[in-house]
Amino acid sequence: MTVDPVELTRALVRCPSVTPEEGGAIGLLADLLASAGFRCERADRGGIANLYARLGDTGPVLGFNGHTDVVPTGDRAAWTHDPFGAEIVGGTLFGRGACDMKSGVAAFVSAAISHAESGKDGSIAILITGDEEGDGVDGTTAILDHMTQTGERMDVCLVGEPTCPERMGEMIKIGRRGSMNVWITAHGVQGHSAYPHRAANPIHGLIDLLARLVEFPIEDASEHFDPTTLQVTGVDTGNAASNVIPATSRAMINIRFNDAHTSSSLMEWIETEMTHATERTGIRFTAETKVSGESFITPPGELSDLIVRAVEAETGARPVLSTSGGTSDARFIRSHCPVVEVGLVGRSMHQIDESVEVEHIRQLERIYARILREYFA
Amino acid sequence: MTVDPVELTRALVRCPSVTPEEGGAIGLLADLLASAGFRCERADRGGIANLYARLGDTGPVLGFNGHTDVVPTGDRAAWTHDPFGAEIVGGTLFGRGACDMKSGVAAFVSAAISHAESGKDGSIAILITGDEEGDGVDGTTAILDHMTQTGERMDVCLVGEPTCPERMGEMIKIGRRGSMNVWITAHGVQGHSAYPHRAANPIHGLIDLLARLVEFPIEDASEHFDPTTLQVTGVDTGNAASNVIPATSRAMINIRFNDAHTSSSLMEWIETEMTHATERTGIRFTAETKVSGESFITPPGELSDLIVRAVEAETGARPVLSTSGGTSDARFIRSHCPVVEVGLVGRSMHQIDESVEVEHIRQLERIYARILREYFA
Repeated sequence: MTVDPVELTRALVRCPSVTPEEGGAIGLLADLLASAGFRCERADRGGIANLYARLGDTGPVLGFNGHTDVVPTGDRAAWTHDPFGAEIVGGTLFGRGACDMKSGVAAFVSAAISHAESGKDGSIAILITGDEEGDGVDGTTAILDHMTQTGERMDVCLVGEPTCPERMGEMIKIGRRGSMNVWITAHGVQGHSAYPHRAANPIHGLIDLLARLVEFPIEDASEHFDPTTLQVTGVDTGNAASNVIPATSRAMINIRFNDAHTSSSLMEWIETEMTHATERTGIRFTAETKVSGESFITPPGELSDLIVRAVEAETGARPVLSTSGGTSDARFIRSHCPVVEVGLVGRSMHQIDESVEVEHIRQLERIYARILREYFA
Repeated sequence: MTVDPVELTRALVRCPSVTPEEGGAIGLLADLLASAGFRCERADRGGIANLYARLGDTGPVLGFNGHTDVVPTGDRAAWTHDPFGAEIVGGTLFGRGACDMKSGVAAFVSAAISHAESGKDGSIAILITGDEEGDGVDGTTAILDHMTQTGERMDVCLVGEPTCPERMGEMIKIGRRGSMNVWITAHGVQGHSAYPHRAANPIHGLIDLLARLVEFPIEDASEHFDPTTLQVTGVDTGNAASNVIPATSRAMINIRFNDAHTSSSLMEWIETEMTHATERTGIRFTAETKVSGESFITPPGELSDLIVRAVEAETGARPVLSTSGGTSDARFIRSHCPVVEVGLVGRSMHQIDESVEVEHIRQLERIYARILREYFA
């Protein structure tokens, strides 16, 4: 049995699976994989549709991970093509999810179904979630929990997210920087701005603290990572009265950090700076933290070598091993097995008129097929 | 004819003259002064009631300035007494405006009416506005404009605002610091917080700039003034997305400045700092300014000596000559004639359960009466 990855992409794009809606996409894939001999199990949780499919009973197990949910269309009138129409014009397929990442899912599902007829030992596991664009609490994590409960495991896993900035084959991702948000509230004493000695201005304390925090990064670029970056993404006070020193003011900070740090080591540093700023200014600070993910890496080795060879053979480009970009579900898989991301050009993701080159989908399927052949050889 | 200043205060407190409402207060005073022989003219403008009253046709002219409008009650349920009830309990009169400054108006109106019977040469001018607590655009300024148009003038003017922090007689005001607000907008380039090199964070530029600005004051206390103070009273960004570097962020700054500066010299300094911060950070800044008033002083001399003597004779306290506090309508009068402020204890102004000691009202009337006697002697 063979499946055309372009036609499968089109069928998936036509499913209006805006997070958290299943939109028919997970069901479509479950039916398809079942008919190709995969054992399909739903790992739904919290209203999110999730699919676990496995072909074969023996080791080693190579996994593929992807998602069928998509971000909202945005201003629909701004689209040149129906975002759920999957129109192809001049070799380009348009639609929400065309790039991120119904095409990636279609490519690895097609490659896996073709591989089913090879008769080789070993297993393919397919993990597809309906919530990667949202909180992700009941997405890939729910599938991994389901696998743990039922004794399923993987030896390696590929995530099919777009990984190339501009040209097919130029980049794969072997890790990601960590990401965390910190909200810092400065607590002062409200008063009249003509009598600052009777008040304590929280903004002045916050400026003192933030001036130190933005001096980050320390020179900390490590072998496989960009330097850590800290951005103050908001400072808000909400004080309408120009003659009033407010009681509090609040800053929002986003940190993308490499393997020289953990969220804990960074919070320790921030709390130390908060203490020093309090000593200097008398303003008290409190902080709340939300960690989206720690940094992680699958060190270059056998798995990345195999993928680099496959990408080079199919595209002629030798991909760099990167850890750049935002977070992905690889951050959940990393604690189960080595994980590498390899996929399409991501330029149009989340944008109006999101699109994918039809030829790239076929190229990506050939990359996945070659990886499967070599891995199970 | 004599008027009890306590009863007049009560009658005024019972007028609900929350800015910009006249509430019956200006009308009541006009009737009273007219019946005592004052020539009364309304100088209403922009929906604000204003009264100009004059007794006598010859010089010299001593003026009194005050306002009958009051700030809102705030949470009325929090008041122990009806804010417009003018209740007296244990020698204390409660109500909105009891302290700021219906009592002050009552004291100088009563003193002026009593003085009318002295038969001395010279004139008393009384300038009472219904808008001191609001913008003040159509308040005392409108009365002064009316006087200019009709050829009226004053040789000296007393403002009856509360001037004592804690105890009767301890302070009079011979000037005020200037006050100005500056809104600074930092203009950056919006982007994803994971890719700060593709964006330009306006908040980082603003932090750099504000850290320099709050190092103010330069040591600039001058003979009669407190040092200049600069307070950042707000920083706001309005960015909800923690992974987005915003395009702009805005700070609000209040400066109270002494006679070592003018609003122009301060803006020149801020603009220089903006330029330096742009050089350091690449962030562009724009600023808007609103000057509430320049600093001013009536240098110590004959007028302040006369007032100090009167206060000391009636209270036993020798008042200090101060320029502290916020702005007052003296900032408008200063360009017409020498102006000094002398009044009650201001501790409860604008607060819940605003109040005044009944005995202080009588003491203030005696101070004003003594000033009139000595001035026209």
